[in-house]
Amino acid sequence: MSFLDRIREINRHDLSAYMDFVVDGCVLGRVRRDRVAILLKSSPLLRRGKGETIEFQADLTTVEARSAGMAAAAATLEAAGHIPALRAELYPATWNFGDPPRFAIDRAAVPFFGLRAWGVHMNGYTWKNGHLHMWIGRRADDKPTYPGMLDNMVAGGQPTGVGLMENLIKECAEEADIPADLARQAQSVGAITYVQEAPEGLKPDVQFCFDLELPPDFMPRNTDGEIADFFLWPIEKVAKTVATTRSFKFNCNLVIIDFLIRHGVIPPDDRDYVALVQGLHP
Amino acid sequence: MSFLDRIREINRHDLSAYMDFVVDGCVLGRVRRDRVAILLKSSPLLRRGKGETIEFQADLTTVEARSAGMAAAAATLEAAGHIPALRAELYPATWNFGDPPRFAIDRAAVPFFGLRAWGVHMNGYTWKNGHLHMWIGRRADDKPTYPGMLDNMVAGGQPTGVGLMENLIKECAEEADIPADLARQAQSVGAITYVQEAPEGLKPDVQFCFDLELPPDFMPRNTDGEIADFFLWPIEKVAKTVATTRSFKFNCNLVIIDFLIRHGVIPPDDRDYVALVQGLHP
Repeated sequence: MSFLDRIREINRHDLSAYMDFVVDGCVLGRVRRDRVAILLKSSPLLRRGKGETIEFQADLTTVEARSAGMAAAAATLEAAGHIPALRAELYPATWNFGDPPRFAIDRAAVPFFGLRAWGVHMNGYTWKNGHLHMWIGRRADDKPTYPGMLDNMVAGGQPTGVGLMENLIKECAEEADIPADLARQAQSVGAITYVQEAPEGLKPDVQFCFDLELPPDFMPRNTDGEIADFFLWPIEKVAKTVATTRSFKFNCNLVIIDFLIRHGVIPPDDRDYVALVQGLHP
Repeated sequence: MSFLDRIREINRHDLSAYMDFVVDGCVLGRVRRDRVAILLKSSPLLRRGKGETIEFQADLTTVEARSAGMAAAAATLEAAGHIPALRAELYPATWNFGDPPRFAIDRAAVPFFGLRAWGVHMNGYTWKNGHLHMWIGRRADDKPTYPGMLDNMVAGGQPTGVGLMENLIKECAEEADIPADLARQAQSVGAITYVQEAPEGLKPDVQFCFDLELPPDFMPRNTDGEIADFFLWPIEKVAKTVATTRSFKFNCNLVIIDFLIRHGVIPPDDRDYVALVQGLHP
């Protein structure tokens, strides 16, 4: 097993199994062909478009009307067990972060429609005896998604109406009790992208990455029950765990590989180096 | 003009104008179709293969024989003015850095065959009054390639038989008189890739990127005549110059954009952020 395996495992997908969801002339999402009939039955506000696509009914042109229609569709899909429990957390439907959303939709319904979701992931690191260490979280055993798996120190989805840094500061407080003044020093360092075919649908997602150097004596403490434990590991142990196990939640592997490259832990003469750099942003 | 323009300008190309150069079953390079006749006349060691390809004659199986054949071809192409003056600097012909080269070839002939070339680029930066500054070089007016243009503090091609860090240390000494002990602290931070259609041929290149924080009082001094001037610019001036002018040698723009993203100078809510991150490693 290798770093490259982690990237390839995530990006396995067969787009031919999906039908484009076209909004205002742009492909905004993709729905599995074997779920299209279910979807059209769940929502009279959607229809088949030209060339094997799904689109809104012609009179559904405003963000408000589309959002209301998608809320109704999500409720019907949830009631019939086609999507997980709604989360009362609205995501913007748009392909470019920051563009005006075409509509809002409950986070739990996003993969069913193959819409792009955004998140923030933070690498928390520190130096101990001159040696680079990284803080690792372990997700609570009762978390609905990826229970018990290893995670970045702080990570969260990016909802509507909140800035990236504002969201990161909130997640830093909730997940690791990092004071706002310290969290604000987190540096944006890039983004990773992937297209994952998950049981719930297609996830063509973007995770914005941040690094935060923590004081050596800082001890994280979870406040929202989502993280069960924190570990401070030498960077080599983190690297080995990513390369040789599937202990981390799938996308955290990519965030950490990006960190390892930027901090010179994976050396440039690694045979997979260029494939890794390219694989983090397909 | 924008950062994204710099990336798009480099990657404009039309691969249909090229014929694959296939070696041991792999596409190792690409030759412009309108130059294939010239090439086959220049080298009896190459032939047309199946499916519109170029390949070595069947009996040319060793690295030594292929390298000798390519040396002869390069000399003929140079004499006829089809490639620039040979540089007596051998490049390894391989797609994966560090893989055993299929043959060696003079650097000046690499783009004619559309082979991948590697280089090292180093961002030299420092903090002045708490503010991030970057060292910029201006290429000598008599340099055969991109004379007078702005450049990274240190950059150079990657020849055969030398390690990346060893090469960087050598370039640091030659281009900016950076002592080896200081140069060795440069951190590898990733790589940028691009496929450029240049007059001399196709360049599907990889530049390994390094950051080096310099002491505030360090003054670079060129020793090999390749850099005419050095400037220490506030990072905002560097960013504006990249975004709004074509003053930098084409690929230095990408190395700097990567630096600006990793150091948080280009913020993650920039509308082009994801396109930039992806565009640096197509």
